[in-house]
Amino acid sequence: MKRPNDAWQPLARPQSRSVPAKTIGIISPGDMGAAIGGVLTENGLDVIACLEGRSKLTLTRAAESHIRGVANLNDLVTEADLVLSVLVPSAATDIAQSVVKAMGETGSTPAFAECNAIAPQTVVSISKLIMDSGATFTDAGIIGSPPKSGRTSTRLYCSGSDTSLFEELADHGLDVRRVGPGIGQASGLKMVYAASTKGTTAVWTELFVAAHAMGLSDALMAEFAIGNSTMADAMAKNMTTMPRRARRWVGEMEEIALTFEGLGLTPNIFQGASDMYRLVGETTLADQTSRKPDPEFDAMLDALTRHLKRDGA
Amino acid sequence: MKRPNDAWQPLARPQSRSVPAKTIGIISPGDMGAAIGGVLTENGLDVIACLEGRSKLTLTRAAESHIRGVANLNDLVTEADLVLSVLVPSAATDIAQSVVKAMGETGSTPAFAECNAIAPQTVVSISKLIMDSGATFTDAGIIGSPPKSGRTSTRLYCSGSDTSLFEELADHGLDVRRVGPGIGQASGLKMVYAASTKGTTAVWTELFVAAHAMGLSDALMAEFAIGNSTMADAMAKNMTTMPRRARRWVGEMEEIALTFEGLGLTPNIFQGASDMYRLVGETTLADQTSRKPDPEFDAMLDALTRHLKRDGA
Repeated sequence: MKRPNDAWQPLARPQSRSVPAKTIGIISPGDMGAAIGGVLTENGLDVIACLEGRSKLTLTRAAESHIRGVANLNDLVTEADLVLSVLVPSAATDIAQSVVKAMGETGSTPAFAECNAIAPQTVVSISKLIMDSGATFTDAGIIGSPPKSGRTSTRLYCSGSDTSLFEELADHGLDVRRVGPGIGQASGLKMVYAASTKGTTAVWTELFVAAHAMGLSDALMAEFAIGNSTMADAMAKNMTTMPRRARRWVGEMEEIALTFEGLGLTPNIFQGASDMYRLVGETTLADQTSRKPDPEFDAMLDALTRHLKRDGA
Repeated sequence: MKRPNDAWQPLARPQSRSVPAKTIGIISPGDMGAAIGGVLTENGLDVIACLEGRSKLTLTRAAESHIRGVANLNDLVTEADLVLSVLVPSAATDIAQSVVKAMGETGSTPAFAECNAIAPQTVVSISKLIMDSGATFTDAGIIGSPPKSGRTSTRLYCSGSDTSLFEELADHGLDVRRVGPGIGQASGLKMVYAASTKGTTAVWTELFVAAHAMGLSDALMAEFAIGNSTMADAMAKNMTTMPRRARRWVGEMEEIALTFEGLGLTPNIFQGASDMYRLVGETTLADQTSRKPDPEFDAMLDALTRHLKRDGA
């Protein structure tokens, strides 16, 4: 038997239903996309994705989630009733343009849900591209870690004038919540929420690395022990799960900076958060995946401090 | 009887001791400086400050803390055994230069402790000025809220080659902790600690204001209620004590940015935190003092959001 990480192959398909299942196209089935796809196939939907040329890890995830491979985007938009764009933020606009091209070439205009962690301004410009093609557009923001079978820890917020097809995903195992009619509302909520978790992590990563670089880690932890150990301990614990996400967060922090700048607030905090995650992303710490153990906290600080020193040398 | 906030006058002095008390000069007796002075006078030391032309609030604080007024810096360096510089960060270098001038004019060189929230680089350059005058220099970093009689919630960290006179303050009611021999160590510890509390507050202030400006406050609080309400509630609660400190924190955030930049880390996060506190400082929210009730959280968000809109208009 072929091992699932050698090449993509579907595992046993979910049992067929009496009415034809709707087909959901996922671009692309990474950590989050594949997990969402897995919940949908488990709950009776047909889920498709373009898998050609993708990494072994992506093929493994797709197989585990019973996601069906299609050859290209043209086939995807032809077969899908609803397309979910779930990518790194920096790829969101490019992929929307590719989807628009595929819609033009095929004449098929499935509903399109923009689920990426991007600024409301970016969503508005993508929505114009999609709606000009004649497709229904949903703004969506995903909050929480990827859903697992039988346990949904993920909220899919949505907004827009017609989010009905996206909201139907609630009948297939996902936690879908409508925020309102405006394009940008769901993304705005994602941005402020992500700012709280990832902005706080960026601040604490920077100060822990600074303390380590100055030889003050022990003194700092002793000071935290006096009055603020709960948060310091929690941050140190959470921080080790960050490096494997850091490269993806670079673009997300830039989108938060853009969101805040558009409101008349400073972009600098989150441009700095982007800088921090870029720094982490430059190290081998970021080569981790969720399938490998996370680094130890002290080893992580050592590696980041060495990286600073190398730059200064 | 004259009310204490009408003009400065010493209250009843602490009882005299058999050996002459040492004299500590405090520049200047603000919120923190006066509280430290109060602990020291309560514990048998003579504390002096230049009070001419100071605000009513400063005179009130000085009187309550039994701080003795002297006419000018020349008198202060002549009488003091140890001078504590406790100011807004932006004033630290200027006041050190004034102290150096006073030392030159009087020939008196009391020990000098640089207690401000400033970057190690800034402390090193101030230490050169002071030591060139022949005075002993202590790098100090104050962590915690101002001490109150009978309850010391403040740690005074110190570093330098000779911190003995500063460490004697531990015999007079203060919590003094030596970090090491290096000038910059105590300040470095203050910087990383302040980054944790004030950096986190800056991030959360920005995202709460952004959510409020987008009409997403309720949706955000509902999302926090699912999995992160402890921190969100704590941040919302703490945030209302920030506006009256915001103007002082502008310069402190810049010093943190400088500290991190010197280590090869991004200055942007804390330049952005400085931007946030400058924004708050531009509003009447920052006219508060610790003697008035803090604003309500919602009223604070309203005021900050209105300020954004006024700028955008």
